[in-house]
Amino acid sequence: MCPDDARHMDRALDLGRRVLGNTWPNPAVGCVIVSDGRIVGEGWTQPGGRPHAEPQALAQAGAKARGATAYVTLEPCAHQGQTPPCTDALISAGVARVVAPFADTDPRVSGQGFAKLREAGIEVVTGIGDEAAAEDHAGFFTRVAEGRPLVTLKLATSLDGRIATANGDSQWITGPETRAYVHQLRASHDAVMVGAGTVRADDPLLTVRGLDVPQQPVRIVVSRRLDLPHNSQLARTTSTAPVWLCHAADAHEEHKAAWQNAEAKLLQVPLEGRQIDIPAMMQTLGRQGLTRVFCEGGGELAASLLAADVVDRLELHMGGVIIGAEGRPALGALGLDRLTDAPRFALRAVRRIGDDVVQSWTRQRRQIQE
Amino acid sequence: MCPDDARHMDRALDLGRRVLGNTWPNPAVGCVIVSDGRIVGEGWTQPGGRPHAEPQALAQAGAKARGATAYVTLEPCAHQGQTPPCTDALISAGVARVVAPFADTDPRVSGQGFAKLREAGIEVVTGIGDEAAAEDHAGFFTRVAEGRPLVTLKLATSLDGRIATANGDSQWITGPETRAYVHQLRASHDAVMVGAGTVRADDPLLTVRGLDVPQQPVRIVVSRRLDLPHNSQLARTTSTAPVWLCHAADAHEEHKAAWQNAEAKLLQVPLEGRQIDIPAMMQTLGRQGLTRVFCEGGGELAASLLAADVVDRLELHMGGVIIGAEGRPALGALGLDRLTDAPRFALRAVRRIGDDVVQSWTRQRRQIQE
Repeated sequence: MCPDDARHMDRALDLGRRVLGNTWPNPAVGCVIVSDGRIVGEGWTQPGGRPHAEPQALAQAGAKARGATAYVTLEPCAHQGQTPPCTDALISAGVARVVAPFADTDPRVSGQGFAKLREAGIEVVTGIGDEAAAEDHAGFFTRVAEGRPLVTLKLATSLDGRIATANGDSQWITGPETRAYVHQLRASHDAVMVGAGTVRADDPLLTVRGLDVPQQPVRIVVSRRLDLPHNSQLARTTSTAPVWLCHAADAHEEHKAAWQNAEAKLLQVPLEGRQIDIPAMMQTLGRQGLTRVFCEGGGELAASLLAADVVDRLELHMGGVIIGAEGRPALGALGLDRLTDAPRFALRAVRRIGDDVVQSWTRQRRQIQE
Repeated sequence: MCPDDARHMDRALDLGRRVLGNTWPNPAVGCVIVSDGRIVGEGWTQPGGRPHAEPQALAQAGAKARGATAYVTLEPCAHQGQTPPCTDALISAGVARVVAPFADTDPRVSGQGFAKLREAGIEVVTGIGDEAAAEDHAGFFTRVAEGRPLVTLKLATSLDGRIATANGDSQWITGPETRAYVHQLRASHDAVMVGAGTVRADDPLLTVRGLDVPQQPVRIVVSRRLDLPHNSQLARTTSTAPVWLCHAADAHEEHKAAWQNAEAKLLQVPLEGRQIDIPAMMQTLGRQGLTRVFCEGGGELAASLLAADVVDRLELHMGGVIIGAEGRPALGALGLDRLTDAPRFALRAVRRIGDDVVQSWTRQRRQIQE
């Protein structure tokens, strides 16, 4: 390891992180080419997942890539996909050294990229920036390992866990700075998801606003019967950003036709009892290529996701207001008796944004023993 | 103002802060005597409120007090109370300069202490450490201005604002470090308060444990009818720490006799409808001399305090667990329709303690205009 490896990898991680939410089904990778201690090329995965980061950085470096070090935030691919393998590009550019956090878990790549580079006489260093890269690529890895996207659940609540007064007044619990941050979170996910009740109550647009983004996230509504207003903002804006509807077999044909007409994508998923089968829905979304889904409620969908144990991250945004027990709860029922059975989360970060407290938690799936 | 004034005042504030909760009905004052840049005497209000900080610091300084600067966290008293006025002690010790944050608001002192010092030729400097001193003396000032103690409400909740599962399992939502911090909070208040339901459900001891404290806080139970178990931990430990019971006129004579027998103090307060009149109860507690009350629930008492707008500070302790809507809410009903009518709080501090998030909020009584 060279003294500047960590710094250059941080730069590559930054580049990749900027395009999180725009590269699905591929990972958001950053690449930096360094020659004689100077950055001579930078690249990142392009919207839609191609071209990859490495060929772009190599193109920028040109002849300076010869003998240089390439910092890549994931193992370079070694298989012929829709683009030629990145290992070949690195080898033919004459790179002397490749630094990466760890091997890709995608079975088409895993270890083979590094092996191919080493065979060509390139030094391969791993273990640099691995914690941050694991965090950034978590959605991609979750899809590879479990077939489903990573799910971030956002709850914006009062200090007592409420999202509105009894008669539905919810404007505003958090302040403008925190609401602007929500648009950043939307932008860094492949899709934004809400339940049918939220569409009926709030008629949300669910787009990223106030930020320049290469592409809008997919907007997903979970609605067993598709009984959603056909003149909603979502229905009127399918050309701005995709709308996908997860419904069951018993959705009315009339609703299905109306939404198909509006150019929404209909995804039929099985029922589990009287509700959408959440694990099956997540597999469906994974097959569509999604790696990161940002769920913004409502409380019933949020509870269903938690009960199905597919919530990987929790974004808890709290405003300095107290609503009381008649207020609408942030979450529906989970059916827990014992606290030892309750889903546990580990704190990743807590900070003040404007007048609010913003907390990021990660699911702890390890069982807590009594 | 001299360059070291802020530093010496910080030291005096530290000394006073250490005895918060132990000096009621008096403020917790710190005093530092500095001669030729060196601290020659330190003092603080003694348990029960007397002796005051200044005479103790002067006694420690002895002859070195002559020509020295005294840093006091509140205007020295000028009236003959149960102890001689501190102004006289400062004058006769030959102090040349007195530094204080601001005038006392107690009408027996207000401005007269400073006037008396100036008449004696002592330089008086104010405006140093005034923000911190206002924070520390807030309970004392609230009692002077409104006749009631400052109220800190603690809520220890899950990430969704619940304090227990539906069947009452609440052990543990927050971790051991946060629970130890609660003992620090108890120790810095004159009294700990809970509702009758909490006593019946949890049989709490409500003492400060794991910390060396000069005196235990008063333990207050709010119970209209005094229908509390006579063999509770509170009833059995009235010799360890005082137990005060706030009840209404319709409490059963049998219960009253049992608690009097156990040496609890009975405080009869009026009803407002079917519930204890919270503002009247707070006036009663103020007349008893309390300046800082720490309320630990339950949800109904907490909601009553919030509805009566006597909650000045909110300590929100959150553990990384999700309970869901059947769980017991941290707060009872407040009867709000519009979010603009909801009690608002301003963030004072947020930090991580152990695996939990601990937030301190202060009541914003300024109306938010739409």
